[in-house]
Amino acid sequence: MTIASLQTPTLGGEHDFINWIKSRSSPSKRMLLGPGDDAAIVEWGIHQADCVITTDMLLEGSCFRLAEAGPIRVGRKSMAVNLSDIAAMAAKPIAAVVSIGLPRQGGRHLAERLFRGMEEVASLFGVPIVGGDTNSWKGPLVISVTILGEVTERGPVRRDGARPGDWLLTTGALGGSILGKHLDFLPRIPEALEIHRLAPIHAMMDISDGLARDLHQICRASRCGAVLHGPSVPLTFEAQKLALETGKSALDHALSDGEDFELLIAMPEKSAQTLMAIQPLEGVLLHKIGHIIEEGVWLDPGNGEDFEPLGPLGFDHTLE
Amino acid sequence: MTIASLQTPTLGGEHDFINWIKSRSSPSKRMLLGPGDDAAIVEWGIHQADCVITTDMLLEGSCFRLAEAGPIRVGRKSMAVNLSDIAAMAAKPIAAVVSIGLPRQGGRHLAERLFRGMEEVASLFGVPIVGGDTNSWKGPLVISVTILGEVTERGPVRRDGARPGDWLLTTGALGGSILGKHLDFLPRIPEALEIHRLAPIHAMMDISDGLARDLHQICRASRCGAVLHGPSVPLTFEAQKLALETGKSALDHALSDGEDFELLIAMPEKSAQTLMAIQPLEGVLLHKIGHIIEEGVWLDPGNGEDFEPLGPLGFDHTLE
Repeated sequence: MTIASLQTPTLGGEHDFINWIKSRSSPSKRMLLGPGDDAAIVEWGIHQADCVITTDMLLEGSCFRLAEAGPIRVGRKSMAVNLSDIAAMAAKPIAAVVSIGLPRQGGRHLAERLFRGMEEVASLFGVPIVGGDTNSWKGPLVISVTILGEVTERGPVRRDGARPGDWLLTTGALGGSILGKHLDFLPRIPEALEIHRLAPIHAMMDISDGLARDLHQICRASRCGAVLHGPSVPLTFEAQKLALETGKSALDHALSDGEDFELLIAMPEKSAQTLMAIQPLEGVLLHKIGHIIEEGVWLDPGNGEDFEPLGPLGFDHTLE
Repeated sequence: MTIASLQTPTLGGEHDFINWIKSRSSPSKRMLLGPGDDAAIVEWGIHQADCVITTDMLLEGSCFRLAEAGPIRVGRKSMAVNLSDIAAMAAKPIAAVVSIGLPRQGGRHLAERLFRGMEEVASLFGVPIVGGDTNSWKGPLVISVTILGEVTERGPVRRDGARPGDWLLTTGALGGSILGKHLDFLPRIPEALEIHRLAPIHAMMDISDGLARDLHQICRASRCGAVLHGPSVPLTFEAQKLALETGKSALDHALSDGEDFELLIAMPEKSAQTLMAIQPLEGVLLHKIGHIIEEGVWLDPGNGEDFEPLGPLGFDHTLE
C-alpha cells in the first residue's frame, strides 16, 4: 500500500502528499497506524466484534461525470456509497482505505479535492481514512473505496431473513436521484443503527439499483414475495420533475431510477407498527410501502384494481 | 457491494456470476457471509487481533499489459502484490475483497479469468475472496484488491524501527522483474511469519519500488542511514540479462528495477547472524546486503574504494 504522489523525483514530494492526507484526516483512536507504511493497522482486538467489509468502485463516465459533478462531490459519493452498504448491514463504520487511478495531467490537484470530499463524508461518521494507493495512468478517473465496519451486539442484518407478513419500510422519498441526490446523499448510518437497536429487522438493503430491483433481491435471498403499495411509495420532487420530461410516471422513476441510498427494511408487522407510530428517527420519516408475501413480486395500484406483476426494474450491471 | 454481472437483463445472470465466484472460492470458516449481500462478514471477534489492511490498484498499461500477460497472470499479480504488503507487516492474511472495472466487450469472460488467477494465489495462502464490485465501462481494465490481515501475538512490524548496527537482510535475488517475476512471484507470507517468530525484526518492507528507494523509505521512517554492500546484493539471472541490453550494470537493475517483492529486513546483528547461520526458510536463502548507520544512504563498492552516495533510485509515483 502506498499513498504516493511525487511532484519531483525526490522522496520529499511523496512524503508531502502523505503528510497532506494525514493533516486532513480526522484523528481516530482506532487507527493504530495510518498512511505511509506497507499497510495500515486498525485497533480491533479489544473490541471483539466481527468485521463487516464492503468495496465499491466508481468509474468516470459510468458512475459520475467529473466535469459536471466536480471532484469534491465525486469524493463524497465514493465514500458515501460504501458507508451506505455498511448501514444496510446495520453495522458501525470503523475505517476506510482508498485506491485511485488519476489521469496524468493535474492528478495531484484532483487527488487533493477528491480526498477533501471523501474526508468530509468520512469524518461526519467518525471514519478515518487509514490508507490507500494513488496512481496516475492514461485512463479516466477511477476510485475504489473499501470500508470496514463492525457488527453491533445485535449482530448484522442480512437481506435473506424477510418472512411473509413482514412490513416493508423505507427511510425516505425515491426517484430522480440523477438530478443531484446520487452525489449529495447522506448514508443512513445513524438511522440503521437506531432502527436495529429498537426493533428486530428481518432483512435490509440500501436502495442502489432501484426499489423494484432491490426488492427482488430481498425476495430472492429470502425465498419469498412482496407487494408494493404504489400510492404509499414516497416520491421525490425530482421524480416528479423528471416525469414531466420523460413521459414516465413519477412512481416509475421511484421504482427504477436507483441510487436513492435510502434503506429498504423488512420487519415484523407489530414492530413496524410501533416504529411508524413513534417515528424515532431525527429528521427522517419511516414510510410503510408494502409487505412480504409467500411468492411473486407485485405492485398494488391502490385503486381496487388487480395487482400487476412488478419486474426487477432498475440498474442492470451488464457484462458482455 | 455488488459482485454483479448480468448477461441478460434478468437477475439470473448476476446470480449466476455470484454463484460462479462462490463455486471458485476456497471455503473458509472465517467467512461468515460471502458475496451477494451489501457487505461481507469476516469472523474477527473471537480472534481478538488487531486488523491490518492494505489496498493496491492495478491499471492496464501502467502496471501490466493485458495482451502480453493474459488475464490469469494479471489476476495473480493483483492478489500477490497485496499479500506482499501483508507479509511486510509480518501479519497473517485473512480475507480479500476485489473491485474491477472491465472493458465493455468480453467483460464476463475476462472477469472469470481474472478471478481464476486471483483465487489461485489467494487459496495458496488460505485467503477467501469474500466480496467485491464488478463494473463495466469505457476505460481500460482496472483492478483494486484490498486484503485484511491480523497481527500475530508478536505484533506488527513497521518500517520505522531500524537502528544503527542492525543488519539488512533480503529474502532473494533482485532486478529484472519486468522479464516476468513481477507477474509470477509468490508473496513472502510464510517467510515473514517465520522470521518474525524467530527473531526481533526492527523494520521490514517488501521491495516494490526498487531496493534503493525502499531502503530510503526505511531510513527516512526510522531516522537513520544505511550502507549497502554492493557485491553482496543477490542478482537475478534476469538482471544480468537486462544489463547486456541496457548497458547498465546488473547491480543497477537490482537497485532500481523494483517489483521484486522480496522482503527487506532490518534486525539486530546478533539475531541476523543466527538466522544467516541456520537459514530457517524452506527454499529461500537469507542474504545479508548491508547494515544500518546513523545517517546517509551509501553504496559500498566492496573493492576498498570510497562509499558512494546512493540515491532513491527506483519507481517514482509521479503525479502532475
